[in-house]
Amino acid sequence: MLTVKAYGATSATDPLVPLEIERRDVGPHDVLIAIRYAGICHSDIHTVREEWGPITFPQVVGHEIVGEVAEIGSAVTTHAVGDRVGVGCMVNSCRECEECRAGDEHLCENGNVGTYSSVDVDGTITQGGYSTHVVVNEDFVLRVPTEIPYEKAAPLLCAGITTYSPLATWGAGAGKKVAVVGLGGLGHMAVKIAVAMGAEVTVLSRTDAKKDDSLAFGAARHIATGEEGALDSLKRSFDIIINTISAPFDIDAHLRTLRPHGALVNVGLPPEALPMHVGSVVSGRKVFAGSNIGSIKETQEMLDFCAERGIAPETELIPADRINEAYDRTVAGDVRYRFVIDTATL
Amino acid sequence: MLTVKAYGATSATDPLVPLEIERRDVGPHDVLIAIRYAGICHSDIHTVREEWGPITFPQVVGHEIVGEVAEIGSAVTTHAVGDRVGVGCMVNSCRECEECRAGDEHLCENGNVGTYSSVDVDGTITQGGYSTHVVVNEDFVLRVPTEIPYEKAAPLLCAGITTYSPLATWGAGAGKKVAVVGLGGLGHMAVKIAVAMGAEVTVLSRTDAKKDDSLAFGAARHIATGEEGALDSLKRSFDIIINTISAPFDIDAHLRTLRPHGALVNVGLPPEALPMHVGSVVSGRKVFAGSNIGSIKETQEMLDFCAERGIAPETELIPADRINEAYDRTVAGDVRYRFVIDTATL
Repeated sequence: MLTVKAYGATSATDPLVPLEIERRDVGPHDVLIAIRYAGICHSDIHTVREEWGPITFPQVVGHEIVGEVAEIGSAVTTHAVGDRVGVGCMVNSCRECEECRAGDEHLCENGNVGTYSSVDVDGTITQGGYSTHVVVNEDFVLRVPTEIPYEKAAPLLCAGITTYSPLATWGAGAGKKVAVVGLGGLGHMAVKIAVAMGAEVTVLSRTDAKKDDSLAFGAARHIATGEEGALDSLKRSFDIIINTISAPFDIDAHLRTLRPHGALVNVGLPPEALPMHVGSVVSGRKVFAGSNIGSIKETQEMLDFCAERGIAPETELIPADRINEAYDRTVAGDVRYRFVIDTATL
Repeated sequence: MLTVKAYGATSATDPLVPLEIERRDVGPHDVLIAIRYAGICHSDIHTVREEWGPITFPQVVGHEIVGEVAEIGSAVTTHAVGDRVGVGCMVNSCRECEECRAGDEHLCENGNVGTYSSVDVDGTITQGGYSTHVVVNEDFVLRVPTEIPYEKAAPLLCAGITTYSPLATWGAGAGKKVAVVGLGGLGHMAVKIAVAMGAEVTVLSRTDAKKDDSLAFGAARHIATGEEGALDSLKRSFDIIINTISAPFDIDAHLRTLRPHGALVNVGLPPEALPMHVGSVVSGRKVFAGSNIGSIKETQEMLDFCAERGIAPETELIPADRINEAYDRTVAGDVRYRFVIDTATL
């Protein structure tokens, strides 16, 4: 066992505090990673505040992790000490179900092992990336190309793959018109990636506050949709909509802005049941779909794509003692566009 | 002008009656069809009873039409006198919009011209197939292979294409598990076509009343879903669900029966807004889609497929004076599985 520094939650209501946690010994197929940077995802906050259900404390979160390989298990051949690597939302899966065998670990029938707050194969609760080290099975360790600035790479492991995967799946590319709803951590990556894929991108945001940013990220248009009926002038405009917002929204009104055969893809997850008319998909043969991270293979593909195209998230680097403040600012939407923790400050 | 016999509605509340209507002269690109059989689609009933909005009376409906070419326009090269042909839900489209140019006339941006109760290019209201003759632009006339029994061919022009198109689009075939919700005019065609495509088919019906029919049509299973919670034992069962029912249904419960990447495709059109949880598509990256008839090209492909595979609908042939009775029985669900009018009785 390795005792390592971390920053985590001891209850759903107290601020996060410095902690020491245990990492398992490096097994034959394990990789020990010296974590350099960890991104703050809104999911981290939902989890520690028990907004998604009860968890076991203490809990260290963080599933946007980059660092260097510090040690490898005896059977590891795909990673070497010193490699720059990353870990996203999963650290293992059953490997036996149809989905795992097809390379879709993120859809594991038996539930993959999440990077934190998940029951690991040894029965312990996984602890995430706000920490100096983590031990991860080699198959769930990604290669992070050196072309991606080190302190900006972490958010790609969640925000990057979450937006890349639906854009790739639904055919974003030259000649396609893509709308991105919400310009936050996910949305700003969706814009950059869709632009790099060759699509014409429109940002749909409540206000014009981030208009300059949208255009700087390569969007052709930024449209403020906060007013009632704002979507009405956009009928038959888009081939693909990526909705990154987890608040209730008007499904029918968004579907009307799609061209025939278009797809509205949600990566945001409003908890309430929302009303929709079936006619909104029947007319124009449209699709309302969801997407949830991506496979390890596709995550690697995304990292390589971002390296090749020079894409990186906008980040604000913080020391560990500003994590609680960063949480408050993330909840308030006051972040452009992702907080990244410098783990040297733990 | 050609004066022809027909059977139509003079008001939303009176029974249909014998009528005489005018057909336009055969233009250079027109085909005059001597109609032999016309199917009764539930849409016909909704239309004449003004359940889908006000219409102009008198109105002859029917968009499942087969017959022989009786005369062709001077410029027609693709059809010849004596050919066995069919007409479905459309008789023209704008031919200029992006969808028309891509061969998707059924998605025409300016609205295609419906076979009945639609404003034709000459400004008249189109009159449908419960008639002895119809004049249709050559591009909207389908070839009906002789392998398809004449009196059974008509329902393919609507019920056939409406179910074939989503099955083809969403990849029904060998190794795929397809559920068909509702065993009516559309549903029984969905079963036959999906079976012919090589899929393993399950019928989801409220009761076991039609179980023998499901199995006779080639379904592997017939499951009665009328009881609360009946879908719970079917989690992760299907790759594709074709929902043919136009009544409210539990979208979330149906999505749960899909495997990852699965698609729930509605061809039924419940008018009410229905509640759904976005998580039902995000988890497992699923799709809720709609489908609405098909293009002329795909309709021809469907007819050729049915001819090659020996697929035909189950029909009950009736004379014109039983149309009103057939309407009542269709509304009551008392039809196995499609009424077809013998137009020689008009």
